[in-house]
Amino acid sequence: MSNTLGNRLRLHTWGESHGPRVGGVIDGFPAGITIDIQRVQSFCDRRKPGQSSITTPRKESDIICIDSGIFESKSTGTPLAFHFDNENTKSSDYDALKDVFRPGHADSTYQTKYGFRDHRGGGRSSARETANWVAAGALASHIVPGIEVRAYVEEIGGITIPSGAINFPDYDAVENSILRCPHAETELKMLRLLEEVRQTGDSLGGVITCKVKGVPAGLGDPVFSKLHAEIGKAMLSINAVKGFEYGAGFQAARLRGSEHNDLFDSDGRLIENRGGGILGGISNAEDITFRVAFKPVASISVPQNMQTKSGGGTELSVKGRHDPCVVPRAVPIVEALTYFVLADAYLGL
Amino acid sequence: MSNTLGNRLRLHTWGESHGPRVGGVIDGFPAGITIDIQRVQSFCDRRKPGQSSITTPRKESDIICIDSGIFESKSTGTPLAFHFDNENTKSSDYDALKDVFRPGHADSTYQTKYGFRDHRGGGRSSARETANWVAAGALASHIVPGIEVRAYVEEIGGITIPSGAINFPDYDAVENSILRCPHAETELKMLRLLEEVRQTGDSLGGVITCKVKGVPAGLGDPVFSKLHAEIGKAMLSINAVKGFEYGAGFQAARLRGSEHNDLFDSDGRLIENRGGGILGGISNAEDITFRVAFKPVASISVPQNMQTKSGGGTELSVKGRHDPCVVPRAVPIVEALTYFVLADAYLGL
Amino acid sequence: MSNTLGNRLRLHTWGESHGPRVGGVIDGFPAGITIDIQRVQSFCDRRKPGQSSITTPRKESDIICIDSGIFESKSTGTPLAFHFDNENTKSSDYDALKDVFRPGHADSTYQTKYGFRDHRGGGRSSARETANWVAAGALASHIVPGIEVRAYVEEIGGITIPSGAINFPDYDAVENSILRCPHAETELKMLRLLEEVRQTGDSLGGVITCKVKGVPAGLGDPVFSKLHAEIGKAMLSINAVKGFEYGAGFQAARLRGSEHNDLFDSDGRLIENRGGGILGGISNAEDITFRVAFKPVASISVPQNMQTKSGGGTELSVKGRHDPCVVPRAVPIVEALTYFVLADAYLGL
Amino acid sequence: MSNTLGNRLRLHTWGESHGPRVGGVIDGFPAGITIDIQRVQSFCDRRKPGQSSITTPRKESDIICIDSGIFESKSTGTPLAFHFDNENTKSSDYDALKDVFRPGHADSTYQTKYGFRDHRGGGRSSARETANWVAAGALASHIVPGIEVRAYVEEIGGITIPSGAINFPDYDAVENSILRCPHAETELKMLRLLEEVRQTGDSLGGVITCKVKGVPAGLGDPVFSKLHAEIGKAMLSINAVKGFEYGAGFQAARLRGSEHNDLFDSDGRLIENRGGGILGGISNAEDITFRVAFKPVASISVPQNMQTKSGGGTELSVKGRHDPCVVPRAVPIVEALTYFVLADAYLGL
Repeated sequence: MSNTLGNRLRLHTWGESHGPRVGGVIDGFPAGITIDIQRVQSFCDRRKPGQSSITTPRKESDIICIDSGIFESKSTGTPLAFHFDNENTKSSDYDALKDVFRPGHADSTYQTKYGFRDHRGGGRSSARETANWVAAGALASHIVPGIEVRAYVEEIGGITIPSGAINFPDYDAVENSILRCPHAETELKMLRLLEEVRQTGDSLGGVITCKVKGVPAGLGDPVFSKLHAEIGKAMLSINAVKGFEYGAGFQAARLRGSEHNDLFDSDGRLIENRGGGILGGISNAEDITFRVAFKPVASISVPQNMQTKSGGGTELSVKGRHDPCVVPRAVPIVEALTYFVLADAYLGL
Repeated sequence: MSNTLGNRLRLHTWGESHGPRVGGVIDGFPAGITIDIQRVQSFCDRRKPGQSSITTPRKESDIICIDSGIFESKSTGTPLAFHFDNENTKSSDYDALKDVFRPGHADSTYQTKYGFRDHRGGGRSSARETANWVAAGALASHIVPGIEVRAYVEEIGGITIPSGAINFPDYDAVENSILRCPHAETELKMLRLLEEVRQTGDSLGGVITCKVKGVPAGLGDPVFSKLHAEIGKAMLSINAVKGFEYGAGFQAARLRGSEHNDLFDSDGRLIENRGGGILGGISNAEDITFRVAFKPVASISVPQNMQTKSGGGTELSVKGRHDPCVVPRAVPIVEALTYFVLADAYLGL
Repeated sequence: MSNTLGNRLRLHTWGESHGPRVGGVIDGFPAGITIDIQRVQSFCDRRKPGQSSITTPRKESDIICIDSGIFESKSTGTPLAFHFDNENTKSSDYDALKDVFRPGHADSTYQTKYGFRDHRGGGRSSARETANWVAAGALASHIVPGIEVRAYVEEIGGITIPSGAINFPDYDAVENSILRCPHAETELKMLRLLEEVRQTGDSLGGVITCKVKGVPAGLGDPVFSKLHAEIGKAMLSINAVKGFEYGAGFQAARLRGSEHNDLFDSDGRLIENRGGGILGGISNAEDITFRVAFKPVASISVPQNMQTKSGGGTELSVKGRHDPCVVPRAVPIVEALTYFVLADAYLGL
Repeated sequence: MSNTLGNRLRLHTWGESHGPRVGGVIDGFPAGITIDIQRVQSFCDRRKPGQSSITTPRKESDIICIDSGIFESKSTGTPLAFHFDNENTKSSDYDALKDVFRPGHADSTYQTKYGFRDHRGGGRSSARETANWVAAGALASHIVPGIEVRAYVEEIGGITIPSGAINFPDYDAVENSILRCPHAETELKMLRLLEEVRQTGDSLGGVITCKVKGVPAGLGDPVFSKLHAEIGKAMLSINAVKGFEYGAGFQAARLRGSEHNDLFDSDGRLIENRGGGILGGISNAEDITFRVAFKPVASISVPQNMQTKSGGGTELSVKGRHDPCVVPRAVPIVEALTYFVLADAYLGL
């Protein structure tokens, strides 16, 4: 099921970065839901490259085209198919890479697994695929109208928003920030570091925090579809993600049980929320909170030794148009996948 | 698919902690593989309670019973079913909990989701379920005989093995340690802290590191069955797990691309292994490395305020026989799930 | 998914005819449904051998044992596991068959596929497996209490109930008949033929008709889970089934459109029901009707030429205790699978 | 899984007859297979309407467009997506049907299930969907190059090829026949009847026989993925199909065991093939044979009483451009689905 996400709501995706188009099919989408296609397009616009000085200058219009499943603005209960045309795909940028494997990329593993690969721009392993995910998440968000998902950049290159400084930021506070970091002082430091790193042709990683409010109790299923396990799996599917934690996360390992247990107040609400909104794999109506770690992108223009197919080495810098830090552009991806996983779980209520 | 793990190799589990037995069915197991049932039993023995002074005194013999799929010591290609009888289940220990929800447990979320629950010992949400996982992983390990999985306790209650002190420890170095921590000095500190915590009736969390050698290249599938995403999902299914990272993990977020990229040497091998043995979701024949964070167990005898079904609060301590720290007993669980996920991926080669 | 039936409600079965036991796990069973275990046992009793002079004298008590998923007589929403102990398994009856392949049996194909087989009584390919299906269907029938499924023997060895003689027979009219044929005159002729055939050591096939009333509209899903396709697939899973048709079936191929189309009356009900209760794969609240063809059982005591593993031939008669005609015993199997498929579809309403 | 066919090889389809396009995604397609796209197009051409005087005059060019998964003429192991543009969709033909339900169509059941439907030309329930199936089957046929599938029209409106007159006809013998009936004398009679029926605005059903040679032993899986059950389910997914039988089929019910059992000759081959090439759900390397029954199409221009959404009745004839008999055009559909199911099973060898 390697190109399918979800159980009740299932997204099947397809497409290579330098083929004619990429797209997806959502099966299991309930009938009769009014779809705001402008809202879907806006969500997609947040992901596309070329939006600011810190991202790749590569431009794609990324207009979503709905192919089936919506009739007179409402979902029909049949598969909801969509696609994006690929444009401006400079395949010639990749000619030099036909016979070499870039460090930190899937080039060598695809070649080994399939004995063969589309070497242009990563082919199927390209982050171009995430356009499909954002579209799918935006569509899925219509299934769970009361749920609000908010992701933001908490850390880039070791520079972090001070603990406790941000709770549940407004949409605008995130989107008005060029780095999608809703803490202005921190963002300024990050921008300075990014500028420095860009000049050396290098790249930076970071951490995205995601919070969800309006979650009904009862989402998620024991034993192998625990809500946090499904969210974690989706996050670990994003290119460059190296870690996932929810609630108190790795910090929980350093607390005692009496410190970590969330107690109920007299109204049956939790006093604190170290559990991250999920108990035994099932949502408890508290806010869901989790964090996702991204490695620095592997495509850098610093010259590096690369392996050739024939076995020897060669020094090359990766050409093409790449972001020094993809973490800000990953914010809508994190949000979209979260909407999709929650909508999938919601259909099991 | 909430009680099913795996795609090509599928484990379906069932059972409640205080029902007559728990068990599982493995479908997709290849025919003709000789099964060493003693080795399976030994793996199961490593998980069972009552093995040392630091674990619960609750004793279970946990003898695996194979019900189908093996004939004359070889797998037949048909479903491999097994079960463990539950014994010594003191249901009366839980009578006080029938109408209250313990903090940090799935009691309240199960009640909300199903409108009804088996309150005895957590029912389906009990860690008793992990007996099935260890059996399944031990059986699955026969599919990938060249692969060696080694997990160990790296951190308990904030006490950590010094960085770089342990590489790939011997099986005996882990198993001869009462805490499954192969660094004697660190283990001693952990034991002292545990003793102190036990006397207060409290509990501790920790971190398990897992390393895998002998992995062939090509395991794992793009896009939504990336090898690390499948491992991560399995780990996040373990009770009390709050975080997962692989390779450089959350630390990768603080490196630059030129620091993080693993370069090839002249033999086409990686010089370092920050990628954790997986590139683009597919194994590259390097060692796989990952870390799993556990919260402190929620069942503590420190009295806590609990919510009752009728909505009010009551102060109770959780009776029953519980471990002050379950992390050492989780080591074979981590290993078994890893074997299972790798065997599942191996069948796709 | 070769040992799994169903999509939302999933039955995973296991077990060989001469292993210690056979059983199944039902996942996706809704919580809070009161289970009448006596009714489940009664359903299972209808399938078991040794009930009358025309079936095999082999006796099995076939007491269902529920292992999980029911607490205080109600389903808990967790997997519902059950098993039957195998008893009285005379493996020695099959020693002569270790190295020969019986005609019309799965012996040779299992050996080819798996390179290895449990030769005792058919192993996994034995009709012993159908005990699991009857249990699962009986349990699933609790999900759709308003639906009544009635199957009966319409034809044995070419002797057929006269057209139009039977509409929707009472449960007793079927069960009081030794051949589960609710038309006394026809049954008498069938019994005479069966007696004649038994004396020659031969066997007979037949046809079962199944009718369902109380079906709500809307069961079934386009495109590849059409209700009749799911029912058909389940029927074709029964050992010895060679054909399936619904509504007017093969006869529909000989009608004109103006003859076959079911017209609506002034109340919006269909005047006739040639469609068999399903239109476009979705139930329309009319009675569902279908027919299932069974070949004569392959195990006969007439001596036959058999192939040996080494390639040569040998003349043998199949020993063991077999029915001259299994069709009457297949009636509860057809009903149980129908309940299961309908309950699966019902959960998608 | 209602829009997905297959287990290891999975086809996900989408599209409505009067939307912009229809298409599909094949996941699990092995890497490195050279695809002959002309052969795929030719297969699709055989299904499209407007090919002869006996089919609908509606014309569609039906040029397949490959969107992903093929690079330099070879499959890459990633999802193989394709689509067909819809053209010449006269939606206005269907305006009269917006508020009425045609007899024998899915109109009323879709409306009931989804509370809403795309009424233009059947929407998702249209046979337009079968274009996707033919494309998928043609692509899948590249996975099993040694297998030859041949379907042909055996019966229309009760006129049947004489028993034993046709064994395994040549491709040309079928394709050169306007009715895809390789027996000239029978075809002539069928054509005369069709002409007569067309003049009355009525329609005819029929039976397709399908034979497969070159099948390796070992395809198919016990217990619920028996090869004939998977083929049967696929056939029952075709619009208008009412029955499926394999091997001796419904006739088997009238034979004795000693007559039906296929005996082995001294070379280990079967002397006859009443089993239809499948034993215990697994292929035995003999030719696979099965038959599929089609009802007469429901869209006829004979005026019929139809139900309106508001509940009353109205007399209408179904306008639009319809075939008096779709059975000849279903021949490539039967073949394509058979290739797909066999390729799916083949990947499990």
